[in-house]
Amino acid sequence: MKTADLQISPFQKLLGLELVRAGDDGVTIRMPPNPDLLRIDGSLQLHGGVLSALIDIAGSYAVEVAVGGDAPTIDLRVDYLKPAERELVATAWVVKRGQKLCLADVEVRDARQKLVAVGRGLYANTKSE
Amino acid sequence: MKTADLQISPFQKLLGLELVRAGDDGVTIRMPPNPDLLRIDGSLQLHGGVLSALIDIAGSYAVEVAVGGDAPTIDLRVDYLKPAERELVATAWVVKRGQKLCLADVEVRDARQKLVAVGRGLYANTKSE
Amino acid sequence: MKTADLQISPFQKLLGLELVRAGDDGVTIRMPPNPDLLRIDGSLQLHGGVLSALIDIAGSYAVEVAVGGDAPTIDLRVDYLKPAERELVATAWVVKRGQKLCLADVEVRDARQKLVAVGRGLYANTKSE
Amino acid sequence: MKTADLQISPFQKLLGLELVRAGDDGVTIRMPPNPDLLRIDGSLQLHGGVLSALIDIAGSYAVEVAVGGDAPTIDLRVDYLKPAERELVATAWVVKRGQKLCLADVEVRDARQKLVAVGRGLYANTKSE
Repeated sequence: MKTADLQISPFQKLLGLELVRAGDDGVTIRMPPNPDLLRIDGSLQLHGGVLSALIDIAGSYAVEVAVGGDAPTIDLRVDYLKPAERELVATAWVVKRGQKLCLADVEVRDARQKLVAVGRGLYANTKSE
Repeated sequence: MKTADLQISPFQKLLGLELVRAGDDGVTIRMPPNPDLLRIDGSLQLHGGVLSALIDIAGSYAVEVAVGGDAPTIDLRVDYLKPAERELVATAWVVKRGQKLCLADVEVRDARQKLVAVGRGLYANTKSE
Repeated sequence: MKTADLQISPFQKLLGLELVRAGDDGVTIRMPPNPDLLRIDGSLQLHGGVLSALIDIAGSYAVEVAVGGDAPTIDLRVDYLKPAERELVATAWVVKRGQKLCLADVEVRDARQKLVAVGRGLYANTKSE
Repeated sequence: MKTADLQISPFQKLLGLELVRAGDDGVTIRMPPNPDLLRIDGSLQLHGGVLSALIDIAGSYAVEVAVGGDAPTIDLRVDYLKPAERELVATAWVVKRGQKLCLADVEVRDARQKLVAVGRGLYANTKSE
């Protein structure tokens, strides 16, 4: 899997997502700085909705890589821990791989490695249906 | 409050959000069809990350209107109920207004009034701090 | 369905749960005052864990009645809105009935009809598998 | 902190909770087998409501130990991963310690170290108010 695959999705292209790493033990996705994704014009702070989207995507990718098939999100919890600025890196991994459902955890860190948000999502395992 | 206020945020402008209604009993926000927000190019299906962002924003707006101040998201749960296409309308209202914390519920419906996702978010009440 | 069915479960019997009403549009379950369920001895305040258990059970019952089969909980969100005292009444209903998964909402009120907690749970629909 | 402190709460005593370990880096709580906590009489399976209660309590304890004061639960997510039998051990730690709010993660394992449920809760930091 490579960045091009990630950017087949128009919305993921809009977010400028780049695939850093993908393996059975998890995925890492980078979101470069982008003035279109800010909460307020002229600020540095990214919109919370951008973070929830990034978390949703990273969790889904972790499951897709692990099961080898599509992994649509069923539900998602996002916790915002501190204001997020500039570049973000999301790391996601599968907590539980079930026949029908998979649970994934996501951490989002800023350029200084500070944890800015965490997420936990339930995804459908379409491969084993 | 009007659409211009909603679009001061670059990311909310990117989503093309339009304010339909805002009152103490809740807000309604419309997201028009936009090919940049799709899950897969050429499909009709909106990206799940767009829905979580819309839910986050609608819940925050409902709290902001109710308390008369900023309402940053603390945490959020999103449940995806069916694939979402084209135009969406989010309705959000405050479930509990506390001195420091407010809980808001959000429903997202498609053009045929079908429920496509629901959300529940906890927001900081910055007005009363 | 009647209280006896609800109390086949030892833990539900321990909580003293009583079925007030059950229908396709939802269920209502009463939890009478019980000193064993308090947060602190000598206080009036119920333990939060009792509320999350009550919410889990009520949501599951709403789904079971609607689908006519077992409905094990997959995940659950609970929001505590105010300290809960004495007698509680939980009302639960199905938000989305899917072939495999059902989403249910729960409200818990005290004897003065004050909302003390809300819950949202995802349940497996074992009937249609 | 010791088991006696944990059992000052009547409901926690009812669950038979035992404190295994408590430190700034987290707490470990054991729940011994108990027929009163079963889902169905004669089965081995613990009631899901018992697990959500255990998770709520463990997360709250982790925060209390870390901040040195009460930590009432604000909201909680619980994911059930597999049926839980007999003895359970919950491990909880603080993910984010804020001035007003703390986020804690919880893992529940059975006697064979299998992960049976995970939880994530937001708790009020009453110490710093």
